[in-house]
Amino acid sequence: MRSEAAILLSGGMDSGVLLAWATIRYERIHALSFDYGSKHAARELEQAASLARTYSASLIKIHLPFIQSLFSSSLLISGGEIPEGPYQKETISSTVVPFRNGIFLAIAVGYAENSGIPTVLIASHSGDHPIYPDCRKTFTAAMSAASRLGTFTRVEILAPFSSLNKREIAQKGIEMGFDFSRTWSCYRGGDLHCGTCATCLERKYALRFEEGLDPTRYLE
Amino acid sequence: MRSEAAILLSGGMDSGVLLAWATIRYERIHALSFDYGSKHAARELEQAASLARTYSASLIKIHLPFIQSLFSSSLLISGGEIPEGPYQKETISSTVVPFRNGIFLAIAVGYAENSGIPTVLIASHSGDHPIYPDCRKTFTAAMSAASRLGTFTRVEILAPFSSLNKREIAQKGIEMGFDFSRTWSCYRGGDLHCGTCATCLERKYALRFEEGLDPTRYLE
Repeated sequence: MRSEAAILLSGGMDSGVLLAWATIRYERIHALSFDYGSKHAARELEQAASLARTYSASLIKIHLPFIQSLFSSSLLISGGEIPEGPYQKETISSTVVPFRNGIFLAIAVGYAENSGIPTVLIASHSGDHPIYPDCRKTFTAAMSAASRLGTFTRVEILAPFSSLNKREIAQKGIEMGFDFSRTWSCYRGGDLHCGTCATCLERKYALRFEEGLDPTRYLE
Repeated sequence: MRSEAAILLSGGMDSGVLLAWATIRYERIHALSFDYGSKHAARELEQAASLARTYSASLIKIHLPFIQSLFSSSLLISGGEIPEGPYQKETISSTVVPFRNGIFLAIAVGYAENSGIPTVLIASHSGDHPIYPDCRKTFTAAMSAASRLGTFTRVEILAPFSSLNKREIAQKGIEMGFDFSRTWSCYRGGDLHCGTCATCLERKYALRFEEGLDPTRYLE
């Protein structure tokens, strides 16, 4: 078993399963959660905190007020409406927060170097690759190279799920007895998952909603 | 002349000269200044704002409160004493803010992508290379690769001074009529440059203090 890892924990299903996966492989986990002014921040961060407690990870909350004030995205409270319907390049590009994973990873690397943690984990997966450039394997590899070169302790970045799609991550979670009802996906961030935005549709597919296996309560 | 560039502007002499250099080459400059809780933040940011005005750059101030609360460094208000005397690996390592340039660059890349700016400039130079890993050419190149791969607009990072040392940057500034009295270096951040910390000694050498050419007022 390896010693310590930092993990980007959003409170969504992918990073939730990654946390469960990591607790089997690392003695201590430091979960980093970012509040960057997204519409679903409250829901996500609540789930992240609860997951960190369950898996005995320490939780570090990092507030990034500049994203909300300087960046444009429908994902942000300061932005427009979240588009309806499935992921499509044209509509979903409004939900992009520019270089979000780059910013989160750079901060996590700094935190890891500061705390003597050798590894940073991110739950990037193959389903996001076509849409978000900072979710691709090539990006994570380049960012890991920058991290190793730019730190005294040669911090590495790993994306253990980068060859899996969201449904395969869900399958992995089921095998580990992961409780998906304790994760949040919906970009709208209401009391319940809306069930109709791109990320809800993707969640439904991954968790086999049609087969009655999805434990999530949706508005519709 | 190229269109637009973002620049990391600290208010120190290297990024000040880079700003002067960039205004000759780019039509519009967006200067990003970070307040991360350093002891010399007030002095540095004041000079950054004044330089941005002089060179007609727009100034974007970004507050990063998490660095002060989560990271340990004698450079920070939350940290110990700034070491006395010249740069040496043993003493100066206490002034490291882990992966600082990585974090600043990642944020600048996000800002650049958000605003349609193709290029981010950083004033890394060869003098810092042996001490700070995130000032090296290899790091900047890897970070630029991550930026190009991780953004829709393929934002590039350039370090035009990476082959120069601080004295050569000073020479370049003198040739451009740059006013060095309007920059701040001292890590202690008093009313005057202390003249005895590593960065003051380096400044004195670069600006040829011994030859009476340095316009800075030092305490000693």
